[in-house]
Amino acid sequence: MSDGTFDKEFVYERSVAFHETDLMQVVHHSNYLRYFEEARVAWMKARDLAGTHYPHSNLCLGVLSSQVWYHRPAYFDDRLRIHVWARREGVKVRFRYGIRSERWPDWVTTGETLHTSLNNEFKPVKPHPKLIKSLEKEIWIETSPWNS
Amino acid sequence: MSDGTFDKEFVYERSVAFHETDLMQVVHHSNYLRYFEEARVAWMKARDLAGTHYPHSNLCLGVLSSQVWYHRPAYFDDRLRIHVWARREGVKVRFRYGIRSERWPDWVTTGETLHTSLNNEFKPVKPHPKLIKSLEKEIWIETSPWNS
Amino acid sequence: MSDGTFDKEFVYERSVAFHETDLMQVVHHSNYLRYFEEARVAWMKARDLAGTHYPHSNLCLGVLSSQVWYHRPAYFDDRLRIHVWARREGVKVRFRYGIRSERWPDWVTTGETLHTSLNNEFKPVKPHPKLIKSLEKEIWIETSPWNS
Amino acid sequence: MSDGTFDKEFVYERSVAFHETDLMQVVHHSNYLRYFEEARVAWMKARDLAGTHYPHSNLCLGVLSSQVWYHRPAYFDDRLRIHVWARREGVKVRFRYGIRSERWPDWVTTGETLHTSLNNEFKPVKPHPKLIKSLEKEIWIETSPWNS
Repeated sequence: MSDGTFDKEFVYERSVAFHETDLMQVVHHSNYLRYFEEARVAWMKARDLAGTHYPHSNLCLGVLSSQVWYHRPAYFDDRLRIHVWARREGVKVRFRYGIRSERWPDWVTTGETLHTSLNNEFKPVKPHPKLIKSLEKEIWIETSPWNS
Repeated sequence: MSDGTFDKEFVYERSVAFHETDLMQVVHHSNYLRYFEEARVAWMKARDLAGTHYPHSNLCLGVLSSQVWYHRPAYFDDRLRIHVWARREGVKVRFRYGIRSERWPDWVTTGETLHTSLNNEFKPVKPHPKLIKSLEKEIWIETSPWNS
Repeated sequence: MSDGTFDKEFVYERSVAFHETDLMQVVHHSNYLRYFEEARVAWMKARDLAGTHYPHSNLCLGVLSSQVWYHRPAYFDDRLRIHVWARREGVKVRFRYGIRSERWPDWVTTGETLHTSLNNEFKPVKPHPKLIKSLEKEIWIETSPWNS
Repeated sequence: MSDGTFDKEFVYERSVAFHETDLMQVVHHSNYLRYFEEARVAWMKARDLAGTHYPHSNLCLGVLSSQVWYHRPAYFDDRLRIHVWARREGVKVRFRYGIRSERWPDWVTTGETLHTSLNNEFKPVKPHPKLIKSLEKEIWIETSPWNS
């Protein structure tokens, strides 16, 4: 981090819970948005940004849109590694995610979520200065597995 | 209802959603507490009591304890009938539930939840007068399939 | 339906459950994918296609990707109307969704999911003939609120 | 463990996810059954018993009943410690759980689940010998906070 940037993307790990599977025997597709959120929360804490977000602040990062690409199934108890990338786009913040497991050589799931900073009346406001400053140090990747 | 009581228990109907099943191909056991809650909310609305509960009132019925007996599995798209009984016990309110489906001749699931009226600081308070009055008209059953 | 097409899009109704909200007081964003799925299942049943899908058939419509745009929040007990459009794209099937509530004049949420027909080994196969035939009768809309 | 028993109860740790809260700002009561299950799965793995349970074996521990006592609320991002006790009762296995967080000096939630060993046709069968043998080494507590 000699140039002031983080030297690699943030990775959050967790296993697939029994209650997250469905009768197809795999993780229900809606749960990946929950994995992304958990990774985002862990990312905020790792960057010491928890204090910039509800409930520790009146601001929150409201979700404007989400996209998920389901490449491979994840099964009960698979150990998942959720990679996170973040970038500021004006008053918005875009997160990209890629999930890997030991079961497959390539991505299990990829996706992105677009957020805007909201105050406690759900009105868009400028992101917290500390968040803006931190985002300047993040790695980003233009080409990616998620648009394939 | 000539004697001022409801003439039968309240029944709430809904089907099992795909996302509520798990890899055992059946409804995940945690979801029955959600079915009970949905039935309780529908019961409150049917008794015109929605206004006595958060977010329409500062009061809410906080859950003190829950019990569920899993007698038979429920499968994707099974049509469930959730029977509800309610009784006041001092400042507390006890609900009993029995779930039936067309797949089985007997109960799929039975259970109960015990609640106390809470204000918006999570302090126990007397239940809303309208709730107390309505509960006097409810049917109750002492002997039941849920203690077997 | 004199020309052999359905005369309007399918609409599935349901209310927001208490357990589907989060501490922002609104529906958690992951739940919209569950609402879309419920609407899709109801759509299949309304079109008499349940028999073409797992568990009634060895085939299923696996989800390849999903997109959701969150325009307006939905609150506890809001009555939601989920509109569904479906179109075959070769061996794939694309669904579009738009959710309305009485609280807002415009869309609450819009989105789409892309599916491929899979056999019980998760291999892509041609969609069930009955599904193909039914899809020919569906309405589609090219311009839409979901790409805004 | 000189006497062949485990020297203390098993403890599983995890934080409260954002998507597990509800509009009361606290963990939705149904999620504690999911926390218990996650702790049970972690317990099985720690005791090297994963191979005795579905999907690694045709046997599974079906849930017969559950009880939960909600003593204190848990909030977003609270770090939870879920204590697990297990005991064989004939062909059944009873688990007890107690959840602590740093926010409260006493239990947040306590509960128990009763299980029976089932084969892949959902028929009760004798528990796996390895599970029986392992359970002999578990600590149990007769008096407890969960019956208060």
